[in-house]
Amino acid sequence: MIKIGIIGFGYWGPNLVRNFSSQKEGNVIAIAETRKERHPSISVNYSNTIIYSNTSELINNVDIDAVVIATPVFSHYSLAKEALLAGKHVLLEKPMTSSVDESKELIDIAKSKNLVLMVDHTFLYTGAVQKMKKLIDQKQLGKLQYFDSTRINLGLFQPDVNVLWDLAPHDISILNYLVKNKPFSVNATGVSHTNNGIENVAYMTINYEDDFIAHFNCSWTSPVKVRSTLIGGDDKMLVYNDLEPSEKIRIYDTGYNHTSDEEKNRIMVDYRTGDVFIPKLSSQEALFGVAFDFIDSIINSKEPLANAELGLEVVKVLEASQKSIKNRGKEIII
Amino acid sequence: MIKIGIIGFGYWGPNLVRNFSSQKEGNVIAIAETRKERHPSISVNYSNTIIYSNTSELINNVDIDAVVIATPVFSHYSLAKEALLAGKHVLLEKPMTSSVDESKELIDIAKSKNLVLMVDHTFLYTGAVQKMKKLIDQKQLGKLQYFDSTRINLGLFQPDVNVLWDLAPHDISILNYLVKNKPFSVNATGVSHTNNGIENVAYMTINYEDDFIAHFNCSWTSPVKVRSTLIGGDDKMLVYNDLEPSEKIRIYDTGYNHTSDEEKNRIMVDYRTGDVFIPKLSSQEALFGVAFDFIDSIINSKEPLANAELGLEVVKVLEASQKSIKNRGKEIII
Amino acid sequence: MIKIGIIGFGYWGPNLVRNFSSQKEGNVIAIAETRKERHPSISVNYSNTIIYSNTSELINNVDIDAVVIATPVFSHYSLAKEALLAGKHVLLEKPMTSSVDESKELIDIAKSKNLVLMVDHTFLYTGAVQKMKKLIDQKQLGKLQYFDSTRINLGLFQPDVNVLWDLAPHDISILNYLVKNKPFSVNATGVSHTNNGIENVAYMTINYEDDFIAHFNCSWTSPVKVRSTLIGGDDKMLVYNDLEPSEKIRIYDTGYNHTSDEEKNRIMVDYRTGDVFIPKLSSQEALFGVAFDFIDSIINSKEPLANAELGLEVVKVLEASQKSIKNRGKEIII
Amino acid sequence: MIKIGIIGFGYWGPNLVRNFSSQKEGNVIAIAETRKERHPSISVNYSNTIIYSNTSELINNVDIDAVVIATPVFSHYSLAKEALLAGKHVLLEKPMTSSVDESKELIDIAKSKNLVLMVDHTFLYTGAVQKMKKLIDQKQLGKLQYFDSTRINLGLFQPDVNVLWDLAPHDISILNYLVKNKPFSVNATGVSHTNNGIENVAYMTINYEDDFIAHFNCSWTSPVKVRSTLIGGDDKMLVYNDLEPSEKIRIYDTGYNHTSDEEKNRIMVDYRTGDVFIPKLSSQEALFGVAFDFIDSIINSKEPLANAELGLEVVKVLEASQKSIKNRGKEIII
Repeated sequence: MIKIGIIGFGYWGPNLVRNFSSQKEGNVIAIAETRKERHPSISVNYSNTIIYSNTSELINNVDIDAVVIATPVFSHYSLAKEALLAGKHVLLEKPMTSSVDESKELIDIAKSKNLVLMVDHTFLYTGAVQKMKKLIDQKQLGKLQYFDSTRINLGLFQPDVNVLWDLAPHDISILNYLVKNKPFSVNATGVSHTNNGIENVAYMTINYEDDFIAHFNCSWTSPVKVRSTLIGGDDKMLVYNDLEPSEKIRIYDTGYNHTSDEEKNRIMVDYRTGDVFIPKLSSQEALFGVAFDFIDSIINSKEPLANAELGLEVVKVLEASQKSIKNRGKEIII
Repeated sequence: MIKIGIIGFGYWGPNLVRNFSSQKEGNVIAIAETRKERHPSISVNYSNTIIYSNTSELINNVDIDAVVIATPVFSHYSLAKEALLAGKHVLLEKPMTSSVDESKELIDIAKSKNLVLMVDHTFLYTGAVQKMKKLIDQKQLGKLQYFDSTRINLGLFQPDVNVLWDLAPHDISILNYLVKNKPFSVNATGVSHTNNGIENVAYMTINYEDDFIAHFNCSWTSPVKVRSTLIGGDDKMLVYNDLEPSEKIRIYDTGYNHTSDEEKNRIMVDYRTGDVFIPKLSSQEALFGVAFDFIDSIINSKEPLANAELGLEVVKVLEASQKSIKNRGKEIII
Repeated sequence: MIKIGIIGFGYWGPNLVRNFSSQKEGNVIAIAETRKERHPSISVNYSNTIIYSNTSELINNVDIDAVVIATPVFSHYSLAKEALLAGKHVLLEKPMTSSVDESKELIDIAKSKNLVLMVDHTFLYTGAVQKMKKLIDQKQLGKLQYFDSTRINLGLFQPDVNVLWDLAPHDISILNYLVKNKPFSVNATGVSHTNNGIENVAYMTINYEDDFIAHFNCSWTSPVKVRSTLIGGDDKMLVYNDLEPSEKIRIYDTGYNHTSDEEKNRIMVDYRTGDVFIPKLSSQEALFGVAFDFIDSIINSKEPLANAELGLEVVKVLEASQKSIKNRGKEIII
Repeated sequence: MIKIGIIGFGYWGPNLVRNFSSQKEGNVIAIAETRKERHPSISVNYSNTIIYSNTSELINNVDIDAVVIATPVFSHYSLAKEALLAGKHVLLEKPMTSSVDESKELIDIAKSKNLVLMVDHTFLYTGAVQKMKKLIDQKQLGKLQYFDSTRINLGLFQPDVNVLWDLAPHDISILNYLVKNKPFSVNATGVSHTNNGIENVAYMTINYEDDFIAHFNCSWTSPVKVRSTLIGGDDKMLVYNDLEPSEKIRIYDTGYNHTSDEEKNRIMVDYRTGDVFIPKLSSQEALFGVAFDFIDSIINSKEPLANAELGLEVVKVLEASQKSIKNRGKEIII
């Protein structure tokens, strides 16, 4: 039985407790929350759990095998480092850390101490992403050409990170999981409408060494909520709409062929449209899969699917996007 | 009665004839089409119209007051120049020309000869754009913050211009018409999947001197057709969905306020959602409005709404976008 | 403080406890559940509540002022009668009882003992129905012409009542609440696909003495979930789509005029279309409103909005619909 | 080459000429239109066609092999009878005639004279209906259980027939074509809001000898346009939405199983949901298929798909629906 401590008990906290406690091989035995005014409501609901106001006390509790860190991003690095050095396996909320250097250092420590270090990129464990992964690995889309994601909504301004750091980690992690190509460079643009310099509208292109391209449209100030991604291959294309209750993925047997018309020195393009297929998806709660994978990786000394390397790749893109925005859209090599 | 000659009789030709012929003060008396194999079908349908295979013959027909040029973009400049020098008023299909210099030269000639020079940015004459113009001029959205356009589809690859030159003129002309701010610079990215170097997927940001931002997502290789634009103001926001048969515009009484929380040194943002309003739009055919404005401008010596300056501004953005793509997304000052 | 006992603790139970316990003037002090195997899970979650396995013990607890009955329909009558005779105010789940006679008897008892008798027609307390009530009372739709409701889905076959008894009470209660006209007669048709004679697909028309008409389409075997109602007036029409997360009501400024063309001995009809308006709705949980109204009616000796007369009217329609189906669609006068 | 005369040149006329004239083996040589004021516009567009103002003259033109009758319903019978007696093959617009007796008489005459008699139930020739026919004939839906159609809109009140006679023929013909079962009886209800007794809102159930059921919801006074049909089988279900530009049919691999729980003397029902499939449909214009089938049936002495028997079955249902409405929803045996 893996004994787990959770650091930071905000919006996501009850979900973490519920999903870790429903694991066969896991149990949440302690929660650390520095905002003491929240302790009473925690203790009412989780009467068998130790509650700390000091995070180090939790980290140094020798009964605890693994620590889940669900605090604001800026604190991830120091808490994770402390936990790893104390010999605990660590699951970090996304994004992994505020910088590439921090992520790399955590990876090195985890490796040297043979500990599991994982990032909660929950979307990778959804039925929709798992289905897309399978389709792409089976080459059903053909050669991939583009990934075009829109994640916009009204509300939920973050006070310390911009809209890309807040919303894009979901889509970047999905992109990196689905596509084997490595991002080569990033261009990003955006503006802040709140005078604090934190962009609430931003756009990002990830460039690759070949003709694959990825694009991200993120906003906290859209009147409509959109969470959709188009993925194009040269055989088929798909639309992933996360707001659909069950029909999240539509696969279009649609494409085009190009031929050279040498006489006119031109490329001629014909396209075809075909059937559309909407697969049934697994409805298992994604966070249950995260919790299972974390515990399973600890028990069996294996790499989780949302491993630290994947988390690092996401931070690399985010860090580059920030540099690009501050350099007026300049290409930043990753 | 203004007598009109049309140069180039392709897909758009019958629409031009129909709309110009239904004007009270206008009439199409000649058509020039260099592809002689099309002449029989033209003469069957327009038996009272002179058909030329040589464009100069049409331009030099002294009965003709005004010329409509509906040929590929690369030929716009030379045909328009010839027509203006021959003393004809000119309506050019969009985009105006292939370069800023060409557009500027045509404007100078038209001015010096006191001729109407207009660009067929048809969308400006739709009920939807006219309604948005009114709303924005009445300050109903408040201070404008962003313009975010998506125009994607499967098919219709152009052999000589990229997807931005093909699809973005619609949205750039709408943007420039609705927003008084002048574009300051452009960043654009994109790829070609046809090995001819012509981008079929491209993204563009237009930056402004203040915190307004515009973004364009254009593709010829999307499995779904999307033609929508979000326009955000600090009082209200709207969504313009051109694929809706009648409910093209939705106005959201939605917004957010930000205040400084000095204690925590933070910006706090609250948002509100409210009613949604879908105005009834005029259903007059947009091209009828274009034809009317062209003839009316000739008769009354006035500037048309889709005047050459507006056409030039569109070309400036397109030229800058091309430079930016070729310079790996670098900001290009307009 | 009104002390409440709940009889029957199934799917709806936790919602009832939560909403009654959050009332300023109310508190749930006892739960009766005859299925003893459910007691442990109830006692874990509601540690300060008395749990009975015998419903009469709860009813006869002298501390209890009011009883909420959330058991299968067939038991409503006897439990409610027992509670009323014991001097308790009663809130019944919908539909009120299995027959008109039972409902009438309960109403008589409640009146003679001056007790509140209310039916949990929750939908009346939603922001959507409240908004429609206001619009209709303000005559914004003009003279009402029709009410056309579709409530279909896959699953949730009831073992003892047909699809009309299961799904139509929602819509009948909304209809009766919104429209002052009294139903005159009912025609209903339907079939059972499970060989138990319980219709899983059924259709019902309610006829009125004037030209108003209401229609209901109910199914447990539809591949798609639909919960929508069209309400037409001679000035405006509206669509109420309960599946929309926030835009549940769309008001169409749409209508038609008819004039007599005496020469041709004909009625001529012209129609107009106009703006569409989507009002923001209150997002207060409907069941909170039910609980508040029940307690408020007890304290202030007033009639609740979802009073027993309204509940009776629903049962009248349901009873008539069943007679009509069994008589092959024959009109049954209510 | 089959020479065709068209009687009645209204809204549908140009479509008939275009589709018959594009047949390899057919040609439109004459048009009869009693409204003489329409002749000039017809002669401009169809200069090689004889134009009659007297329908008998067209019918008696010996060059004509076949007559298409596109006049108001009340005149179908007499015109068709005259044409058949003159030895012409006949295509009637839908519905076939105003009464069952008239339709039967026409069928007898056509048989006795060995002439093709066909009804323009255009929908049978659409890609969507052809695809559904194939799916159902291949038993992909399993045993059929219900057919539930909604065809509502604003506008287009007919002055002489009610909304069922106007709109339901489409759906009844589709139903009869897809389902082998014969309708047994009809219940219908409806109201008129124009004081001329012609129902503008009406509902109809068709009952069968087994547990199959069909339902129709028709209105000329809906603020929204809906044209959709649900067809349920015990293996799969489908939704046919005719307003979708290309994705008209969605097949749901969805269903339910019922078992007897003898202990509780109950039927237990479990349901399953699965993939959704949207087949690509043929985009051939349906009326081209009608014209082809008519001419092909004449040349090859075969029965067309939309033959007179099918047309008669539609009229039987309509006539019964009218009786039922006038008898307050009473079941009318067909």
